[in-house]
Amino acid sequence: MRLLLFIATFTALALVSFAPMQQKQRIVFFGDSITQQGAQPNGYIMVLGDMLKQKGLQDKYELMGAGIGVNKVYDLYLRMDDDVLAKNPTTVVIWVGVNDVWHKRTSGTGTDAPKFEQFYNAIIKKLQAKNIKVIICTPATIGEKTDYTNELDGDLNRYAGIIRNIAQKNNCELIDLRKDFLTYEQANNTENKEKGILTVDGVHLNEKGNQFVAGEMMKALVK
Amino acid sequence: MRLLLFIATFTALALVSFAPMQQKQRIVFFGDSITQQGAQPNGYIMVLGDMLKQKGLQDKYELMGAGIGVNKVYDLYLRMDDDVLAKNPTTVVIWVGVNDVWHKRTSGTGTDAPKFEQFYNAIIKKLQAKNIKVIICTPATIGEKTDYTNELDGDLNRYAGIIRNIAQKNNCELIDLRKDFLTYEQANNTENKEKGILTVDGVHLNEKGNQFVAGEMMKALVK
Amino acid sequence: MRLLLFIATFTALALVSFAPMQQKQRIVFFGDSITQQGAQPNGYIMVLGDMLKQKGLQDKYELMGAGIGVNKVYDLYLRMDDDVLAKNPTTVVIWVGVNDVWHKRTSGTGTDAPKFEQFYNAIIKKLQAKNIKVIICTPATIGEKTDYTNELDGDLNRYAGIIRNIAQKNNCELIDLRKDFLTYEQANNTENKEKGILTVDGVHLNEKGNQFVAGEMMKALVK
Amino acid sequence: MRLLLFIATFTALALVSFAPMQQKQRIVFFGDSITQQGAQPNGYIMVLGDMLKQKGLQDKYELMGAGIGVNKVYDLYLRMDDDVLAKNPTTVVIWVGVNDVWHKRTSGTGTDAPKFEQFYNAIIKKLQAKNIKVIICTPATIGEKTDYTNELDGDLNRYAGIIRNIAQKNNCELIDLRKDFLTYEQANNTENKEKGILTVDGVHLNEKGNQFVAGEMMKALVK
Repeated sequence: MRLLLFIATFTALALVSFAPMQQKQRIVFFGDSITQQGAQPNGYIMVLGDMLKQKGLQDKYELMGAGIGVNKVYDLYLRMDDDVLAKNPTTVVIWVGVNDVWHKRTSGTGTDAPKFEQFYNAIIKKLQAKNIKVIICTPATIGEKTDYTNELDGDLNRYAGIIRNIAQKNNCELIDLRKDFLTYEQANNTENKEKGILTVDGVHLNEKGNQFVAGEMMKALVK
Repeated sequence: MRLLLFIATFTALALVSFAPMQQKQRIVFFGDSITQQGAQPNGYIMVLGDMLKQKGLQDKYELMGAGIGVNKVYDLYLRMDDDVLAKNPTTVVIWVGVNDVWHKRTSGTGTDAPKFEQFYNAIIKKLQAKNIKVIICTPATIGEKTDYTNELDGDLNRYAGIIRNIAQKNNCELIDLRKDFLTYEQANNTENKEKGILTVDGVHLNEKGNQFVAGEMMKALVK
Repeated sequence: MRLLLFIATFTALALVSFAPMQQKQRIVFFGDSITQQGAQPNGYIMVLGDMLKQKGLQDKYELMGAGIGVNKVYDLYLRMDDDVLAKNPTTVVIWVGVNDVWHKRTSGTGTDAPKFEQFYNAIIKKLQAKNIKVIICTPATIGEKTDYTNELDGDLNRYAGIIRNIAQKNNCELIDLRKDFLTYEQANNTENKEKGILTVDGVHLNEKGNQFVAGEMMKALVK
Repeated sequence: MRLLLFIATFTALALVSFAPMQQKQRIVFFGDSITQQGAQPNGYIMVLGDMLKQKGLQDKYELMGAGIGVNKVYDLYLRMDDDVLAKNPTTVVIWVGVNDVWHKRTSGTGTDAPKFEQFYNAIIKKLQAKNIKVIICTPATIGEKTDYTNELDGDLNRYAGIIRNIAQKNNCELIDLRKDFLTYEQANNTENKEKGILTVDGVHLNEKGNQFVAGEMMKALVK
């Protein structure tokens, strides 16, 4: 009887004291229009939520979208206090870069490579200073052709390379979507199509694309 | 006797109460390559220092340059903690905008008008929150022709207009260098030259230009 | 009697043989989308046709549109044999330049100023070599604001200046639409609107714009 | 004896009657700054001349450079009468495309892909109409990195693809320098350098590059 009481007490105490370990992970997905759409029905963040539910992990993760269209890396820096830190996240997944490259061509307002790196580092530093785990992604694609003839392939590869270096230098986990997409496209886009495989327009994810990205995110988040 | 006491008391009180007015003004000039050069010998900040000395005001003002080449408005935002706030200024003179327009053409990495405004406002807000006086300048010139045929005249006028609005909305003092330059050029550049009047290359100040800008700054700082 | 008959006969013959002097003027309007729309109902070429009819001059002029959207000066050069010379015109009115400036910003494919001049001269030379009268126009507007804050005002003014020089050097008649528009806008666009005065979108003519251009063309064609 | 005489006679006759087949080939190299440099000492056209001499073929070929810096495809079209047809060539080797891509980034004045094709076809058509043999080349490189991270790799690959299609449609011989360079670079640029392998600056040929190009040209010209 005494023993039982002891065990019950111990268990109760254990539950209380171990509670922090079972603390809900608060994950903010921080990015551009791709992530903005990711928080909409069937978007990659929603699909990821379903995947967690199927594994019975829904109580352990809280997923929050913080994507805004037309955003480049310095836009993220400008709004990170309001849109990320204010949400008090345990983890931030950053996915940015497409507009930094694309807008050079479409409006003359892309981001210089050295400044891209500078702002990206500043964001990470500020998050890590608050003990927030930072996971970063390479930009997936602007055009789905597999023979390196998408107009901006060279520059996008360059910026993906910069992000890989940033991950290594800042000790961040990397989700290499550019590499993942290329592997998938080489296997599945045998007709060298410009869009329609994982995207609707070469950039924004279609249903298959949202599932694919959610799957890649899952691997990084749940281990 | 009573009178003397009264005077002494009044003087002491006056010294105390007027003390803040005699406090040294610490002025940071925050900008791009034009301001970086402004802190070099014969640069506009140095000329301004000489002007203050000639008026016997050298002890009342401390001038500090914080210009870095190739900077756009978001670069200022990124480095304002280290390069401006750390200097504990009483006044900040911001002069930026040329590269935000120019880089659209030269490298595809200019700044979109709405984001230019957004970052500019964010800088001012952060400075004013610390009770720092903010004075802002319109970009002077990219090409000195007076007949509106400088390639980027239209866009530069547009951004100058944005800055005038920003000044009004944020209750900042404005040094309208774009307007000042135009007035000067119309009187003195009768041959419609592209450069050589106030600049060496259409953008960066020559000796006359540094004196001219120092003069305009003087009007705003010492009243 | 014989003499009279002779005179009458001679006169009749003369009328017939001099007919070529009363020959119909065949005018080709050679340009971009603005001219392409000009040949559609209510377009400036159609309005010009109505104006000629009102003056009873419809039999003396044949107006033909040769405008194609997205055209720049070198596109005109490439297609001038098929689209202009094949029509055997007596007069060609060239109106081009907006895309040469505009596409620099929108797609990185505008036309360098020296090449703009080079191709323009080559077109004129080829037309004049066939004794075709050449009338050239300055580009009217990209944005209708009157305070020189339309983004591309500077560059468009520059290209308008190039065309004025070309007219002078090649002894071509000039229809200075850029100047005409500015005069009209300063009188009628008192609210500094970006569009809606003479254009629907800052570039393409609205009803008023088509009438205005037709009026300016009329002055140049019928004297 | 009679036989020998017969043979001698036959040979003499043969030499005379076959003479037209031994007519000197007049080859014009038509292109941009790379070809302009190719006609200078140690340039690829000069190296090619030496290679022909070493094979004792110097009397059968006359090589003429017609490269001008900053040229794009439409510049070639504009000057082909004066610079190519006036030289009465039997063969024209066209090598153009780098500036059509590059100038999009550096000055906003590159060439749209459909117009690139349009002008290229027009040049070939005009040459073939005069029974001139046309050999065309893909643009070699803008940056020598082998991992597809040169900024303009995607667009340059796209334009190379367009040229390959043009060759096929117009029944032109193709010298696929883009492919040849890539093969060479993958074997010899193991450190993924940006320049210095076959070029001095990522675009213009160094000594090794001139020899390499001359070798590839040789294969196409002498069979």
